[in-house]
Amino acid sequence: MPSLEDVLPPGRVVRDPAILVAYQHDQEHAPWSEPAALVRPINTDEVAVAIAWANATGTPVVPRGAGTGLSGGANAVPGSVVLCVEQMNRILEIDPVERLAVVQPGVLNEQLRAAAAEVGLWYPPDPSSREMCSLGGNVATNAGGLCCVRYGVTRDYVLALEVVTGAGQVLRLGSRTAKNAVGYHLTGLFVGSEGTLGVVTEITLRLRQGQPPLTTIIGAFESTAMAASAAVATMRADGVNVEICELMDEATFTAVDALMPLELPDEVASLVLLQVTEEAAAAQAVAALEAAGALWAHRSESPQESALLIEARRRAFEAVSRLGTVTTEDVCVPVGQVGPVLTEIESIATTHGVPIATVAHVGDGNLHPMLIDDGSLSQATVRAVFDAILAVAVAAGGTVTGEHGVGLLKRDAAIGQLGDAVVELNSQVKSVFDPNHIMNPGKIAVRAMPQEALI
Amino acid sequence: MPSLEDVLPPGRVVRDPAILVAYQHDQEHAPWSEPAALVRPINTDEVAVAIAWANATGTPVVPRGAGTGLSGGANAVPGSVVLCVEQMNRILEIDPVERLAVVQPGVLNEQLRAAAAEVGLWYPPDPSSREMCSLGGNVATNAGGLCCVRYGVTRDYVLALEVVTGAGQVLRLGSRTAKNAVGYHLTGLFVGSEGTLGVVTEITLRLRQGQPPLTTIIGAFESTAMAASAAVATMRADGVNVEICELMDEATFTAVDALMPLELPDEVASLVLLQVTEEAAAAQAVAALEAAGALWAHRSESPQESALLIEARRRAFEAVSRLGTVTTEDVCVPVGQVGPVLTEIESIATTHGVPIATVAHVGDGNLHPMLIDDGSLSQATVRAVFDAILAVAVAAGGTVTGEHGVGLLKRDAAIGQLGDAVVELNSQVKSVFDPNHIMNPGKIAVRAMPQEALI
Repeated sequence: MPSLEDVLPPGRVVRDPAILVAYQHDQEHAPWSEPAALVRPINTDEVAVAIAWANATGTPVVPRGAGTGLSGGANAVPGSVVLCVEQMNRILEIDPVERLAVVQPGVLNEQLRAAAAEVGLWYPPDPSSREMCSLGGNVATNAGGLCCVRYGVTRDYVLALEVVTGAGQVLRLGSRTAKNAVGYHLTGLFVGSEGTLGVVTEITLRLRQGQPPLTTIIGAFESTAMAASAAVATMRADGVNVEICELMDEATFTAVDALMPLELPDEVASLVLLQVTEEAAAAQAVAALEAAGALWAHRSESPQESALLIEARRRAFEAVSRLGTVTTEDVCVPVGQVGPVLTEIESIATTHGVPIATVAHVGDGNLHPMLIDDGSLSQATVRAVFDAILAVAVAAGGTVTGEHGVGLLKRDAAIGQLGDAVVELNSQVKSVFDPNHIMNPGKIAVRAMPQEALI
Repeated sequence: MPSLEDVLPPGRVVRDPAILVAYQHDQEHAPWSEPAALVRPINTDEVAVAIAWANATGTPVVPRGAGTGLSGGANAVPGSVVLCVEQMNRILEIDPVERLAVVQPGVLNEQLRAAAAEVGLWYPPDPSSREMCSLGGNVATNAGGLCCVRYGVTRDYVLALEVVTGAGQVLRLGSRTAKNAVGYHLTGLFVGSEGTLGVVTEITLRLRQGQPPLTTIIGAFESTAMAASAAVATMRADGVNVEICELMDEATFTAVDALMPLELPDEVASLVLLQVTEEAAAAQAVAALEAAGALWAHRSESPQESALLIEARRRAFEAVSRLGTVTTEDVCVPVGQVGPVLTEIESIATTHGVPIATVAHVGDGNLHPMLIDDGSLSQATVRAVFDAILAVAVAAGGTVTGEHGVGLLKRDAAIGQLGDAVVELNSQVKSVFDPNHIMNPGKIAVRAMPQEALI
């Protein structure tokens, strides 16, 4: 049997442990193993060759973008090859008439945003990691961000894909047209499949007209549940059409304050951040927040102030990560349930003595409680709190992941949420594209295969 | 073996040929056969019982909504049972906080629109048949309409589904949350699957805030290709954010004129219809149409005039249908290709002597050339023109169906467009949900099964 080095050009395969160590897991506090090798293909053919080799040798393949994931989705398994697309990082085309971009999967989210802006266009999905995360990873996890509340998630922007399936077939799915009703929506099936069906090698993304200038509105509240209810009420108020609708609790903005001083009064327990494009809407949003019990609410007086407030929100994860090892939740619940669910989460944190800082895309009901282990907690305690929050979300009619994906961290919970029948169908769908189950074993809500060497 | 009458309550199974005749095909000029029976279940359990019986007896099942389809997707095959969901026609819930509706599949599109409007909400997808078509059929075909250019297609609104698979399993897919990244997107896979994976028995649909008041802009052109280019240029002009972007050619508006007088000057060969919500945008749109060579352009002076212009567009299919037997195309091409493709279509029509009237959701590149047979044409001629147009669209980077689905009419062309590898994967995906291939055989782009009795 040839080695991976035998089938790929020189330089593509890395086995140096000093390099491998940077490619064996993502940003989340989840288990991983050492991979056997790292492969960095530069084109689709090389991806296909690597996958064919993996099928022939029964080697697990763990696809990887920029490694900024938050669910352990790119964590290596024993004996695996990590297939990283970082060298496939070219923007192939931006078409201003069709309003689309064709990119390789290693292109960073921010890289596309900047290139689109040069022709007056905009790629909305904006994970907080947008300066570092890759579009391939965004497609794999169906990534979201702050803009989703108005502009939707990654799947809403994927017009077409080139993929190499787990069987090693190169397929082109979807089209460059605005609409397409020709057969099963395999494009949409690959989005959010977390590298378990194959590797995405080219992405055609819908772009929009550039975003108009934004006004940011900030409201302060004496409780998180009150802030959540006020945010939802304001978002639904006549004439207010929010571009983002975010929430930060006290633990979060206190952490951010250490990075960039926010100088908030002591009585503030939670902040709501909204953005709107119209003058009238800004005034209405301030009034609606006040009517919903805000301690105070005001609108940004300048683009600089507006940008500063949003930067504070975007740096939340970075800020909280300085306090200890962070495990990030990503539950999504019906917006009417956000207040009660946040109250339950606070109660769980108190009961177990686990500090939690919460940011939320509250307009989408997508909550990111961050569990902080300063080194004093047991793994079992953190896991118990993590699982308790997942259970609360599912009981409220929610889902265990809104935008980070299932990965390793939420696999059991996802299987519980979906039920045996759907998990069995998921497993059969996986088998269609990845008959030997070599692609990212142990991730997402599919049955574990007997031959899988899990972490 | 029990009969269908043995397993279902009295009244559900119909075998009276006088009734069956109204359920054996949709609105399109495509082949059909007589079914063995019609089943009209009133709930999910009855659908599951019927599907279980069909599996046990090897009977093909042809799901049917309101029968307004335009691709032969609901056409019966020999020995089949037509399963019509028209008696599952209740709106189960409209939730103004979550902005969603839960409906049974037999609810008509217009019925939901009216109910949503009562609480200030809106369900955008709006096929021209919206007063007659069912939401179950809309989901089956991933239906579009005039609003898609801004608001997307049916798939963009489907949050969750209850389905009975071809294996007879009742599944709940998706969730009521704004975002959901938990595993494979089976909800999206069922949307547009044309009843070949199972029967949709409940639909949870996203709703939007009610649409603001609209101004309609009309522009007249001396050629269809010129009108198409002008429409695209206007849609892309700064500050113009169109709500709809439609085109009608001379043959179409002449036919409509017989239903409702439009009194257009002789030199007009094509009309562009746009809608916008802002005063400034209306003026800019008029200016952009004029700059792009319009004979004249003006904006509606009243809501009545605006509604009248849109009614003229919506009645196009009805008007043209009075001229003969109509076969409707539904190709979708990149918007930059619309002008050249329309010119090619006109040339094909002339060459073959087949009159064609074209309406288009031109802003989406979605064209509906209607082939008119006044009784003097051979089927072979009509089919040759139909296929030639499909080929032109695919050659231009387009797709054979933008919103009507593949059905029977476009099956061969869809298979050609997708290629053998994707068709094989489609077939395997179908087998996961419909292992005995009883669901709507002969439709969509899957392999024909040896046991299938095709039309």
